[in-house]
Amino acid sequence: MNQLYFDHAATTVVLESARKAAIEAFDVYGNPSSVHSTGIAAKKIIDNARKAVAASLYCKPEEIIFTSGGSESNNQAIYGLAKLRARRSKRIITTDSEHPSVANPVNSLAESGFEVVRISTKGGRLDLQQLERELESGAAFVSVMLVNNETGAIYDIESVKRAIDKSGCGALLHCDAVQGFLKTDMRIISKCCDLASISAHKIGGMKGVGALYCKQGIIKNLAPFIRGGGQENGLRSGTENVIGIAAFAAACAEYPKHRDEISSVYNYAIELIKQSDIDFTINLPEKRVETILSLSVSGVKSEVVLNCLVLHDICISAGSACSARKGRSGTLEAFGLSKELADGTVRISFGVGNTKEQVEFLVEKLVEAIKRLKK
Amino acid sequence: MNQLYFDHAATTVVLESARKAAIEAFDVYGNPSSVHSTGIAAKKIIDNARKAVAASLYCKPEEIIFTSGGSESNNQAIYGLAKLRARRSKRIITTDSEHPSVANPVNSLAESGFEVVRISTKGGRLDLQQLERELESGAAFVSVMLVNNETGAIYDIESVKRAIDKSGCGALLHCDAVQGFLKTDMRIISKCCDLASISAHKIGGMKGVGALYCKQGIIKNLAPFIRGGGQENGLRSGTENVIGIAAFAAACAEYPKHRDEISSVYNYAIELIKQSDIDFTINLPEKRVETILSLSVSGVKSEVVLNCLVLHDICISAGSACSARKGRSGTLEAFGLSKELADGTVRISFGVGNTKEQVEFLVEKLVEAIKRLKK
Repeated sequence: MNQLYFDHAATTVVLESARKAAIEAFDVYGNPSSVHSTGIAAKKIIDNARKAVAASLYCKPEEIIFTSGGSESNNQAIYGLAKLRARRSKRIITTDSEHPSVANPVNSLAESGFEVVRISTKGGRLDLQQLERELESGAAFVSVMLVNNETGAIYDIESVKRAIDKSGCGALLHCDAVQGFLKTDMRIISKCCDLASISAHKIGGMKGVGALYCKQGIIKNLAPFIRGGGQENGLRSGTENVIGIAAFAAACAEYPKHRDEISSVYNYAIELIKQSDIDFTINLPEKRVETILSLSVSGVKSEVVLNCLVLHDICISAGSACSARKGRSGTLEAFGLSKELADGTVRISFGVGNTKEQVEFLVEKLVEAIKRLKK
Repeated sequence: MNQLYFDHAATTVVLESARKAAIEAFDVYGNPSSVHSTGIAAKKIIDNARKAVAASLYCKPEEIIFTSGGSESNNQAIYGLAKLRARRSKRIITTDSEHPSVANPVNSLAESGFEVVRISTKGGRLDLQQLERELESGAAFVSVMLVNNETGAIYDIESVKRAIDKSGCGALLHCDAVQGFLKTDMRIISKCCDLASISAHKIGGMKGVGALYCKQGIIKNLAPFIRGGGQENGLRSGTENVIGIAAFAAACAEYPKHRDEISSVYNYAIELIKQSDIDFTINLPEKRVETILSLSVSGVKSEVVLNCLVLHDICISAGSACSARKGRSGTLEAFGLSKELADGTVRISFGVGNTKEQVEFLVEKLVEAIKRLKK
C-alpha cells in the first residue's frame, strides 16, 4: 500500500496469516451445529480457535465465548452483570474514560435506577484512593478498561482487583480489554477479572468477531445475551462466524510476533516529535502501550490537521474512530486536557507494517501542516 | 466438491460472487467511522451493500440495520418490540413453530410477565381463525415466520397483517424471514411488516452477518440492542463487519438467479421419492418454498439414517441444525406428526450447486439405507 496507515487503534489491516486462515475456512462451509462431515469440520475450526484465543488470555477454552465484536462483548458483560447482581447491589463503579460501548450501557442502567460512580483517570492513572473509598459503599460490579483507546494509558487492573478484595464487598470485575489485547501482559485478565472483552479487528483479525472471557464460575449464572439455538455454551446463540473466528485465532498467534517492531516504530515517532520545533504536548501516560500516541497542539483544530494529512494519503485519527463520527468523547478532558487542547489532539496509532521511514514522512508532513495552519 | 451437500437450510456454501466481494473487501481495511480515505472506502462498501440488501426487500436503504445474523436480528426485534409496547399491552402472539431465536426470547418474556399466545401451524398452515380470535384481546406485537425452517411451509404474512388491521388493536408485526429470504416473493415484507429478520449465510453469504428490516416510523422508537459508538442509525453499535456485509450484498444479487435451477432439482427429488418403494410420508405444505423437503419414515430413527448417508459423504439434516445439537424442536409435532414419525424425519434442503445427478444418488442411497434399517 502507498497509503500511510497510522490508525491501528481504529482498526487494523487483516494479517497475512489471518487472511489465509479465513480463505481456507471459506471451503469449510458446514454449520458447526450439523453432525455431518462439513459440520464437524466447521466445529473443529471453532474448537481449535477457542483454544488459540484462550491461550492468548491464559485461560481455559471453555471460558471463551465468541461474539460479534468488542461492543457486543461489552454490552453482554455490563447488562449481564447488572442482571446477575441487581438484587445484591444497584451500584456500578467504572471510570470517566470508558469506551462508548461500556459507557452507554452503563448510562442506560443509570436511567433504570442504578447508581453509577466514575473514577477519575486524570493523567492516564486510575485514582485508586477514590476507588477504595467508593468500594466502601459496595458495588454490584466494577468495569475498568485495560488500555484507553485515545491515550494508550494502561489502567492498573491488578490494583483494582486488590481494592475489591480488600473492600470485601464482593463486586465482580469486568475489563474492556479491546485496546489492550496482546499489547500488554495478558496474564492480568484471568488472574484478576471475572469478565473481559476482546476484539479481533484490533490485532489483525476481521471486523465482526470478538470474544468475552467469562471466568468459569460465572458462566452458568450469566444471562444469555442472544437467545436461540444455544451456541457458545448457551450464552450467545447464532450460527458461529466460522471464517471470522478462524482468522481471529490466526491473528492471536501472529500479532505478538510484531510487538517489538511496533514498539520500536512508536518510540522513534516520539523521538522525532520531541526533536521537532512544534510545541506539541505529548499526552504520555506513565504506564502505556507502545501503540497509541496522543499529541495535542494549541490553536489548531485536529480535523483540519487530519484533512492536511489526507492530501498525502496519511491516515491518523482525531479521537476514537469507533464513535461513528459523533465527535469528542470526553476522555481527553478526563485525562486533564483543556477543551481547547482536546480539540487540537490527534491520535497516531501504530501496527504491523509501519516502518521508521513511514514515521519520518508522517512527522515531516504533520509538522508542515501545523506550521502552515499556525501562520 | 465430492461431498453431496443437501443441508442448505442449515447453511450454504459461499457463492463465488460473494467470495469475490469478500476478498476484495479484505483490502479496504479502514474503519467505516474513520474520515480518512480507507475509512471512507469502507463506508462506501457499507452504503452500497445497504442499497443492495434494501433492493432485495423492496425497501429503503435507511430501513436496513446490519446485524451479526438472524439470531441477533430476531432478539433485537422481539426484545425491542416488547420494550416499545409494554405499556400498551403485555400480550405477544406468535406461532407454535418459530425458530428458537424467536421462541426463546418470547419464552424469556413470558417469564417476566408477558402473556404469550401460540397460533397453530398444523399442516404448515397458520390457523387464521385462531389468530383473529386472539387478536380480539389485543397484542403488543405479533411475530410470525415467513418460511418454516423444518418443513418449508410459507406462512401467510399478508393475512396476518390483514387480521391485525381488521382487529384494530394496533399490534406491530415482526417476521422472521431468515428461511424465506429470496426464496419467495419478498414484496410481502415491506408491504406488511414493521420488522423483519434476514441472514446472509442462508443465501450464499458468510456466517456472522444479517440484517433487520425496520420500517421507517419504527426506527426512531426502537431501543438499541447493542449500545456504543452509535453505528447503524444508533440501533446497533459496533464496528461494521465490512467483509461480511460486502459478501452479503453480492449474495443478494446472485442468489435469485439460481432459483429456477434449485426448484427444478427440488421437484425432481419429490418425483423420485414418490416413485421409490419406501412408504415415505412427504410433509408437503400446500404453500411452500422449493428448497426444503421434509420426509418421514415410521420405525426408523433419523439420526441412524443420517449416519448411513454420512458414509457416502451425503449431508442432510435430522431437523433444524441451528439448534446446536439440542434435539427436536417440536415443530414437526406442531405440523401434525406423531412423536414417532417426527423422530423418523429427515430434512433435505436444496441450494446452488445441487444437480439432478446428485439427487439420483441421494435418493438411491436414502432408499438403500432405509431398506437396510427396516430389515
